[in-house]
Amino acid sequence: MNAGTLYLIPVGLADTPWQDFLPQLTRDTAAALRHFVVENAKTARAELKRLEHPTSLRELDIQELPREAKAAQIAELLAPLRAGHDLGLMSEAGCPAVADPGALLVRAAHREGFRVVPRVGPSSILLALMAAGLNGQSFAFHGYLPVDDAARTKSLRELEAESRRHQRTQIFIETPYRNNKMLAAILSCCQPHTRLCVASQLTAPDERVESRSVAEWQRRPEQTLPKAPAIFLLLAD
Amino acid sequence: MNAGTLYLIPVGLADTPWQDFLPQLTRDTAAALRHFVVENAKTARAELKRLEHPTSLRELDIQELPREAKAAQIAELLAPLRAGHDLGLMSEAGCPAVADPGALLVRAAHREGFRVVPRVGPSSILLALMAAGLNGQSFAFHGYLPVDDAARTKSLRELEAESRRHQRTQIFIETPYRNNKMLAAILSCCQPHTRLCVASQLTAPDERVESRSVAEWQRRPEQTLPKAPAIFLLLAD
Repeated sequence: MNAGTLYLIPVGLADTPWQDFLPQLTRDTAAALRHFVVENAKTARAELKRLEHPTSLRELDIQELPREAKAAQIAELLAPLRAGHDLGLMSEAGCPAVADPGALLVRAAHREGFRVVPRVGPSSILLALMAAGLNGQSFAFHGYLPVDDAARTKSLRELEAESRRHQRTQIFIETPYRNNKMLAAILSCCQPHTRLCVASQLTAPDERVESRSVAEWQRRPEQTLPKAPAIFLLLAD
Repeated sequence: MNAGTLYLIPVGLADTPWQDFLPQLTRDTAAALRHFVVENAKTARAELKRLEHPTSLRELDIQELPREAKAAQIAELLAPLRAGHDLGLMSEAGCPAVADPGALLVRAAHREGFRVVPRVGPSSILLALMAAGLNGQSFAFHGYLPVDDAARTKSLRELEAESRRHQRTQIFIETPYRNNKMLAAILSCCQPHTRLCVASQLTAPDERVESRSVAEWQRRPEQTLPKAPAIFLLLAD
């Protein structure tokens, strides 16, 4: 078969050389591609520059995946594969199709019978799970929790109860400027023995991974979280 | 502070050069360590050899993490950190503290106030999630399902119902020689529109990622899965 392959290319999480977060094979795969579907064209171009893509960026075919992409738009984005070219999928940061809308493109590629090959790279969710010291044998990722105070409290209580029932690590994210609000909500509604890890700036020089019980977090009332992308992880005892 | 850092070092999933699956920084971090806690000493030595660790393997301090480690044993394994040495944690394959017992060591390191630094590397769970084209914005990992037929069917039905309720990708693993039994169980008890992905031999030359509806899987009765480590992913419609 002459059809192309869809390669899933992870993108760096921080301002560091690619050798810090990508295997040579992932970089070489990206550098050999001329067709890309990306979450954000500007950040994708910056990433391809960091990877020293040998082709002038202007000559590369870089298409944005629409936020609420319709089936026809997604089918059109796969055109390079039908023409026999390989295609790269890149998200804004981290692994494509994880905590971003890229999975719809991957699904369409499977539907048309194209080969899908994931390459190794950084995922803030996975790095946080590794470093948290909670339970890596059962875990769930929930994306963003509700913003409204009452709804967030209800959601946190449900996650904590489910965590206790299944000994499951619950993972969620928050917009950087709401990190401290999320921390306060957790400390006010979760049980003292519940373990909470907050991981921020992963792979960056100022990476922080703090993991302790809710009671221990409460004993540090002065503590504030950085206004940076953070992952929250909960495990009820 | 003079204390050491606990580095989390991912291990390759297949018989390929380390440049295919590890960033230079992860390899260099491992190559600079002289103290390791590992899931399996034999596979850890083979991995350090693949990474061309500059020290003779016999001179490295490589301790196995007992399967059902007691608190006192874990505390003892952290001794190098207290003595001011860095320590590396490695699982048998993939990322330490994910789908293996290493999280207990990480938790103990946090409790004593040591810095924990996760390095980037391959995780079959994450690679399968990227490549499945299911939902990467909500997912859960459940480890192994029950082996008993009736209990496995009950568990699959519960996972499918939970997937439908939360649009959550359900991820689980199976022992290689039971892959085909698991596939048959899924095809006999899940709904036709439920999507099933099976990913095996990830990062190896014979990597396979197949993602289609249960109805489509059923139309290929001759299909068998390789007797190799596989990840199963379900998403109910």
